[in-house]
Amino acid sequence: MRATFLYEAGDVRVQDAPDPVVEQPTDAIVRVLRSCVCGSDLHPYHSLTAADGPVPMGHEFLGTVEETGSEVSGLQRGDLVVAPFAFADNTCEFCRAGLHTSCPAGGFFAAAGVGGAQAEAIRVPQAQGTLVKLPNDVDEALLPSLLTLADVYGTGYHAAHRAQVEPGDSVTVIGDGAVGLLTVLSAGQLGAERIILMGRHQERTDLGRYFGATDVIAERGDEGIARVRDLTGGHGTRAVLEAVGHMPAYEMAVGAVRPGGVISRVGVPQYEDAPVGFGSLFGPNVTLTGGPAPVRAYIEKLLPAVLDGTRDPGRVFDRTLTLEQTPDGYRAMDRREALKVLLTP
Amino acid sequence: MRATFLYEAGDVRVQDAPDPVVEQPTDAIVRVLRSCVCGSDLHPYHSLTAADGPVPMGHEFLGTVEETGSEVSGLQRGDLVVAPFAFADNTCEFCRAGLHTSCPAGGFFAAAGVGGAQAEAIRVPQAQGTLVKLPNDVDEALLPSLLTLADVYGTGYHAAHRAQVEPGDSVTVIGDGAVGLLTVLSAGQLGAERIILMGRHQERTDLGRYFGATDVIAERGDEGIARVRDLTGGHGTRAVLEAVGHMPAYEMAVGAVRPGGVISRVGVPQYEDAPVGFGSLFGPNVTLTGGPAPVRAYIEKLLPAVLDGTRDPGRVFDRTLTLEQTPDGYRAMDRREALKVLLTP
Repeated sequence: MRATFLYEAGDVRVQDAPDPVVEQPTDAIVRVLRSCVCGSDLHPYHSLTAADGPVPMGHEFLGTVEETGSEVSGLQRGDLVVAPFAFADNTCEFCRAGLHTSCPAGGFFAAAGVGGAQAEAIRVPQAQGTLVKLPNDVDEALLPSLLTLADVYGTGYHAAHRAQVEPGDSVTVIGDGAVGLLTVLSAGQLGAERIILMGRHQERTDLGRYFGATDVIAERGDEGIARVRDLTGGHGTRAVLEAVGHMPAYEMAVGAVRPGGVISRVGVPQYEDAPVGFGSLFGPNVTLTGGPAPVRAYIEKLLPAVLDGTRDPGRVFDRTLTLEQTPDGYRAMDRREALKVLLTP
Repeated sequence: MRATFLYEAGDVRVQDAPDPVVEQPTDAIVRVLRSCVCGSDLHPYHSLTAADGPVPMGHEFLGTVEETGSEVSGLQRGDLVVAPFAFADNTCEFCRAGLHTSCPAGGFFAAAGVGGAQAEAIRVPQAQGTLVKLPNDVDEALLPSLLTLADVYGTGYHAAHRAQVEPGDSVTVIGDGAVGLLTVLSAGQLGAERIILMGRHQERTDLGRYFGATDVIAERGDEGIARVRDLTGGHGTRAVLEAVGHMPAYEMAVGAVRPGGVISRVGVPQYEDAPVGFGSLFGPNVTLTGGPAPVRAYIEKLLPAVLDGTRDPGRVFDRTLTLEQTPDGYRAMDRREALKVLLTP
């Protein structure tokens, strides 16, 4: 088959690779119908060294089941399925608690011997717990929105859910990437009344307004913090949902959160240490939460409104390319010419 | 009057000082009946430079009202009162939300022009919102337990409350100081089923068992973490309540918390930056919460069981000295000869 590999920073290649096969009785093989490039794919795209490459790429996909291992039940060849970006058995105590990303039998696609989704087909470990069936006759126009359930919509939902956003709440969302915009959508879905979106690309923030942002702040750093405080009686918002992952975004979150409030992070941190002492989190009793989203826990909840068209998170895709054009997709997202690139076979 | 000042690390003096007077119409003057030395007093006792001294000391007291400003109502000369370590108006939006430590009209005793409680008398700003009346005929034997409502009991309760400890929960408490032990008491009060106390002073951990600890771990660092994991099926406890404030305690908390769990800090952090990235908090979706306890929010709730003798947090006091002997109290606590020193006039 054809599959995407990152050789080193900036060097993405689509090349021949062995067809995936069932390795464990709990595996399934899925033929990829739609996949995409994630904002988090840009982190290794910026930093991978040649010594650490090549690595398979892509962790978001929907497709049709081709083959299942002997211990997989409830899935048949031809079923249309979507997968969360982390596979999991969906039966252990962590999965039952909605924390599929900590499943001891789980892991991430495009890592540790599991192939990537920017490919013609993919092996899915723990297939029965991981894959969620979609109606086989679904309108093709819904596929982009359904694909967001694999990661970006569920990740945005996780940010809002972990911050315990509730009706009437005030929320700041940092980041106008696909996750940030779907964090706006999710915060609104949970009832937030005021949603301040911090982002500086007008096409994106306009989409953010469509998804429910009530205010947009283009300024960054101290100026951005001052603007949030101006809008909130000087105190900041009760929740800040951080969908970037870089230190300046963390610092803005600390500056924009109200005393006693919550910073919920879903942008993968590109730092290990950060301020948490008296002068940042401790003094004002600010809570820091979030992590990789257990999107498997949210798919069934978010699915109906996508299927009936009430919510259209798929609008984050503003460019469609073929698998062979994947390197162009990385370039376009890296240059911010595209918000999020959808890949077809 | 006589009052305690720290001149520099290790140099505590009780000396003559001007009698406090009503400066604002919202002030009251309280004659101190009981005060004490706090574990957090040891931080400046270890680190204050002569250039930054002398500073007044003490933030925990109960006593009788001597005088009230013209805008203070509901308090009369002679009333027995206890104060939280942070004064606050108890009417603003933060106080109404139970976050008195962020009251814009509030502040801390022994700081910013407000005297310390290790003294014969003290000026109480925002007296009406700050002081809580106690029965004037209360049994003198209850005074030590009532004094813990000023800080250490409320602070322990804050740790458990912010971690949302609930019936059946599993909890690790780091620290066998007075706050750690009353964190054990509070976790039990909120229904925790398993309470693992990390501490290495047997007299203290024995008191911890009396307060409800089900397990005691004397080991520290990686060995201590391994012991917690051994006791909890390999995963750690859902909540870790950190009552120390030093970096090794933070690191133990990260190691002992279950994925998806909560670290709740009430030990005043002696660091600003700490690990919060993928390898510590983010990857396992661990929540970090806590801060200076708004103990004013908890006094009415905790008071009845202290008054009727059901709970006896005052057992943390294992030495009683007079105000003049305060320097001996610091020395005894610093050398860990005393757990917590009660001061009488």
